[in-house]
Amino acid sequence: MHERSFTVGDIPGILWSPAGEPGDRPLILLCHGGGQHKKAPGVLARAHHFVAAGGFAAAAIDLPGCGDRPAEPATERLREAIRAGGDVGPLIIRHNTELAAGAVPEWRAVLDALGAPVAGFWGMSMGCAVGVPLVAAEPRIKAAVLGLAGGESLAETAATIKIPVEFVVKWDDELVPRESALALFDAFATDDKTLHAYPGPHNGQIPEEPETSARFFTRHLT
Amino acid sequence: MHERSFTVGDIPGILWSPAGEPGDRPLILLCHGGGQHKKAPGVLARAHHFVAAGGFAAAAIDLPGCGDRPAEPATERLREAIRAGGDVGPLIIRHNTELAAGAVPEWRAVLDALGAPVAGFWGMSMGCAVGVPLVAAEPRIKAAVLGLAGGESLAETAATIKIPVEFVVKWDDELVPRESALALFDAFATDDKTLHAYPGPHNGQIPEEPETSARFFTRHLT
Repeated sequence: MHERSFTVGDIPGILWSPAGEPGDRPLILLCHGGGQHKKAPGVLARAHHFVAAGGFAAAAIDLPGCGDRPAEPATERLREAIRAGGDVGPLIIRHNTELAAGAVPEWRAVLDALGAPVAGFWGMSMGCAVGVPLVAAEPRIKAAVLGLAGGESLAETAATIKIPVEFVVKWDDELVPRESALALFDAFATDDKTLHAYPGPHNGQIPEEPETSARFFTRHLT
Repeated sequence: MHERSFTVGDIPGILWSPAGEPGDRPLILLCHGGGQHKKAPGVLARAHHFVAAGGFAAAAIDLPGCGDRPAEPATERLREAIRAGGDVGPLIIRHNTELAAGAVPEWRAVLDALGAPVAGFWGMSMGCAVGVPLVAAEPRIKAAVLGLAGGESLAETAATIKIPVEFVVKWDDELVPRESALALFDAFATDDKTLHAYPGPHNGQIPEEPETSARFFTRHLT
């Protein structure tokens, strides 16, 4: 497996591939969640599995204010609020909506730079908040695994998405109310969508992953 | 693949196995749905896949009033009501509850006769209405794929079930209200449960099946 670092403008990223140029094969975009970065364990494990088991290329970037990028005041304020406790759900939604507005054109520039004609997208939680508007805007993305996010700020955009979607819900999510998560699944305007719900809290491992995602991308991208 | 017919008392059944005695390997019980029988296409396809891909034995029987068994007045009345149209949901629930009361001891007698120490159970709709009380009563069943049924008459029994459960919901089910199906998933007293929801009506193919069920039984029974 090849792993190489890249930068597009001031966006640092990693590209994994089995061999040859990434343009030769579908590229899976891995969008990390809040408090994570391009080499977070969940991102790395999926990148390695998608490349080794699926024969895909995979790419991850640091989102604004994360990983190797300069701190963003809004992100720092959110982290302080989470440390202080209390109901941070509405704060997270507002933060992620603002962050996504900047991250969507960044991901599109990365797709341009890496030159893949066909891509998949994987993102949970903050990665889903970025993914919904990105997938809606970007015709090169042909299938998406999304989840751990709710409909409040995303359902309207989700209702324009017609590509296959696999959507993950944690049944006991303390950050995303169950009804809100189910409403987001409900909103996607495709009949080729699957909901996978598992008991447990927002953070922590997703059962049956990354195998389920890899099979989904194989079904829809190859 | 071997296929042989059997009878236990007056219950006709079929046993599929790769080779050797069924007692050598986990046995998957396939319980057909309403209006079906032991060789309905969905039952046959799963039996063949579980045996060929999973190395399991598989067994199906005709439920009371179905297939090769004498007609039951209650089942005939339900069929007439369905043909006549209207809201048959409450009728189906009552019918299935009564049918399950008879079918549970039948399935246990079949397990005795076939001699498998470890079994899995697969049943949707009426098959789920039989499966919930059967799985709750029968310690030889170690994992169950259930679905297309609601919580009204089943949630209380489901709350005693602690084995791994994979639960299927059709998101646009016209016979089982979505909230009722989700309430039944919610009720199972195990953390090892997964909800798979797919768009579409009550009847018709379940996407990703039978592969998903086969992987589930392989994870939990072998």
